[in-house]
Amino acid sequence: MKPCLNNFFIKYQTMDKEKFIISHFKSKFIGDDCAVVGNLVYAKDLFCENSHFKRGWLSHKEIAYKSMIVNISDIIVMNALPKYALIGLSVPKNIKKDDINALYDGFNKACREFNIEIIGGDTISSDLLSISVTMIGELISKPTMRKNLKIGDILCFTGKLGSSLKSLQILQRLGKPNFKSRFFKPILRDKFFYKSSKFINAAMDISDGLSRDLERLADINGVNFKFIKKLSKFELRSGEEYEILFSVEKRKLNRVLNEAKKARIKVTPFAKVIKGRYKRYGKTEHF
Amino acid sequence: MKPCLNNFFIKYQTMDKEKFIISHFKSKFIGDDCAVVGNLVYAKDLFCENSHFKRGWLSHKEIAYKSMIVNISDIIVMNALPKYALIGLSVPKNIKKDDINALYDGFNKACREFNIEIIGGDTISSDLLSISVTMIGELISKPTMRKNLKIGDILCFTGKLGSSLKSLQILQRLGKPNFKSRFFKPILRDKFFYKSSKFINAAMDISDGLSRDLERLADINGVNFKFIKKLSKFELRSGEEYEILFSVEKRKLNRVLNEAKKARIKVTPFAKVIKGRYKRYGKTEHF
Repeated sequence: MKPCLNNFFIKYQTMDKEKFIISHFKSKFIGDDCAVVGNLVYAKDLFCENSHFKRGWLSHKEIAYKSMIVNISDIIVMNALPKYALIGLSVPKNIKKDDINALYDGFNKACREFNIEIIGGDTISSDLLSISVTMIGELISKPTMRKNLKIGDILCFTGKLGSSLKSLQILQRLGKPNFKSRFFKPILRDKFFYKSSKFINAAMDISDGLSRDLERLADINGVNFKFIKKLSKFELRSGEEYEILFSVEKRKLNRVLNEAKKARIKVTPFAKVIKGRYKRYGKTEHF
Repeated sequence: MKPCLNNFFIKYQTMDKEKFIISHFKSKFIGDDCAVVGNLVYAKDLFCENSHFKRGWLSHKEIAYKSMIVNISDIIVMNALPKYALIGLSVPKNIKKDDINALYDGFNKACREFNIEIIGGDTISSDLLSISVTMIGELISKPTMRKNLKIGDILCFTGKLGSSLKSLQILQRLGKPNFKSRFFKPILRDKFFYKSSKFINAAMDISDGLSRDLERLADINGVNFKFIKKLSKFELRSGEEYEILFSVEKRKLNRVLNEAKKARIKVTPFAKVIKGRYKRYGKTEHF
């Protein structure tokens, strides 16, 4: 259970009710992208019609693929290799054979790309299409826990942020979005992250918008952030980016930037971890 | 992925489509109550409104409890101890605080009874209440796989079968069922099973009705069964019993019956494993 990954609480409920629900789950395992048990890590994110997507926005193949990717992303930011998946599939009663084929193509695409085996699951009929993925990973070395942030660390994010929110806004206006945006095709930074993880203190994926995710990182560590780079509204608010937010000691920053250069990905240092209490900028916007 | 645990295929789809979906999942891990990976076993069963229950039939506490029990049952019949759970929770937007409390009471009841820790999960809003539980267990010794059936084995089941179907039929006629029936309160046979597992060749829980589950056991082992006891329609057809169907060598049967006597539970030897091909009796009836 992540501290707050429930879209609906942000959208439909008061913060009191959110805290009320989360307060039930008290465990040392809860509060990160994955639960760490020995050298294994476990992620379980739901991916459901009308909560995470509308049919018509994504193809069946894209839906199945993204349901896997959002969980693989959680495994990667713990510094673990995804190994096995269990899939809970609720499919509409009238689903067509071609759509079933497309779903499995999507699952299999993710399995092939990340060398994952589907080892079990369950299927039922429902009114809506919804997918519950449990992803099991193996730690490469120490886990890059959210709570490992250090005062003085530099906060960075990978890639470019904002395209997911742009696409979402266009979709909600019934327009034609850029189908290359992260909303349709999240790109994970596994190779760069595994190479850099020895320099990294804390990490999480950006699933609910940088600003919201920063708030979580601040809360769990009891710290504040001093921005060293001005970020746009889109960069701060765009959810479902699946880029990585991480912290690194200042003296190790160049080594991380070097790894990023070798991997040909952009890494943006944007804030410094300081003492104090963080106040979130703006609201979160994702579907 | 169990070979066929999809109610909806039995009810709404042709057998061709069922086989079509399952044919996508090819893995040596698939085909039992749990996936076995090293000394760990994984179960993932969905428990969803209108597929497994209607609201009003079960209280929120009973719904949450049963969602855990159906997964714990899968762990037990592998000869493993349930240890950790991840919970994917889809709750209606207008859910009341008391109902949330009741759900967590149900989860916690199962956790206390079986010494399980909830280590993670996800929550979203939805139109329907649905719960996806991933249960992680540790093998006690060798797993009691479905495929380990031997010719000459005696097939037995624990407890009394039939009450779940009786309750379901009454509920569907809008009558008042016996709330002590297994439909409301499944009773697991963990202590007996762990004591007896060294004598047992193959085991599975009875979730889709003895007759249907026998068909699976026959299919996976390529065998037939000779009934040595006449069973009633209710015993053969009642699903969601969560009693255990198991096979034991004839010469070890008395030791198992002895363990059953000590645990004060009923064990009924009812068939012998023979060569040939099994033909299912009647249709499956569960919600």
